[in-house]
Amino acid sequence: MLKEITIQTNTQTQILDITAQVQKVVEESGIMRGLCCVFIPHTTAGVTINENADPSVKQDIVMELNKVIPFNDNYSHLEGNSAAHIKASIIGSSVNIPVKNNNLLLGTWQGICFCEFDGPRNRKYFVKIIEN
Amino acid sequence: MLKEITIQTNTQTQILDITAQVQKVVEESGIMRGLCCVFIPHTTAGVTINENADPSVKQDIVMELNKVIPFNDNYSHLEGNSAAHIKASIIGSSVNIPVKNNNLLLGTWQGICFCEFDGPRNRKYFVKIIEN
Amino acid sequence: MLKEITIQTNTQTQILDITAQVQKVVEESGIMRGLCCVFIPHTTAGVTINENADPSVKQDIVMELNKVIPFNDNYSHLEGNSAAHIKASIIGSSVNIPVKNNNLLLGTWQGICFCEFDGPRNRKYFVKIIEN
Repeated sequence: MLKEITIQTNTQTQILDITAQVQKVVEESGIMRGLCCVFIPHTTAGVTINENADPSVKQDIVMELNKVIPFNDNYSHLEGNSAAHIKASIIGSSVNIPVKNNNLLLGTWQGICFCEFDGPRNRKYFVKIIEN
Repeated sequence: MLKEITIQTNTQTQILDITAQVQKVVEESGIMRGLCCVFIPHTTAGVTINENADPSVKQDIVMELNKVIPFNDNYSHLEGNSAAHIKASIIGSSVNIPVKNNNLLLGTWQGICFCEFDGPRNRKYFVKIIEN
Repeated sequence: MLKEITIQTNTQTQILDITAQVQKVVEESGIMRGLCCVFIPHTTAGVTINENADPSVKQDIVMELNKVIPFNDNYSHLEGNSAAHIKASIIGSSVNIPVKNNNLLLGTWQGICFCEFDGPRNRKYFVKIIEN
């Protein structure tokens, strides 16, 4: 089971909750047990799992990453978006979540977060579900 | 094969070696070949793979993460644990290890490390083994 | 399908593109659909996915990680390579890429990057492919 989903980001750095979309793919697959991998095919965006309740957590993650990895820091890459590439590697390009009873086995406060580091852009991600 | 394991942490930030517990789940599963995923269902804890020999490595990882991501830094999230959320996303919520001959295919010095960033707490993690 | 590949690094911190080698393992496996996991069995090296085109991106990632996690910072670990251990946990020890039509489903600009943080050394990594 492999599905491609498109997503539009709105600002330069932003975290968007994609949990409902991924859960829908799991449900439509009919797969009861396995592992769900969300994969980002971009080099200036990433994916993480974090709090789905208070939106200020997403703001704080973005704010602090932008502080630790400054937008300008004598980078060599002439395109000017090295900070976005570095943040993408720190956060990572995939997450894996166990699937149980046709549901993502997320904790109570967990959501799947698409991380834009060089937007706004039209983006996409893949959901691959291993049945096992 | 999916198993839930509970764990008790003792301090605010702490790395605990869970390799033996995960290896036991692999052995009890009887699965000879596949992929083992350790998944943390929390938003202020994570999991990584690092040195299992000298405990000072775990101390240095915790010390440096606490330095790079300060506990207080004008965060918006009112609960006061934004640094823990940020560290969880930097370290990640899952690790994957190949399984060969009913064993985790870890390197000589590698151990699986549960990372507490907002303890002490009662925590849990899932071990999902894909047979393939 | 599990394969071990050796790699030689040349400097203390370095990112090497291993995409062609991993893609070759996928092709030789004959597996049409699934998930490919690249796993690093070391505690001072990691693996990430990032730009495969302009090599200055790899340089900037290495430069900035070396800046954020200094080589010397009152670490406890007497071996003197704590910074390498910390960077390994920040970057991570595995990546997962969907496999479609016997190909890695990487984005246009994505490559798989072996990250050396305590070289030069003889290293190795595992490619595990789940067919599903």
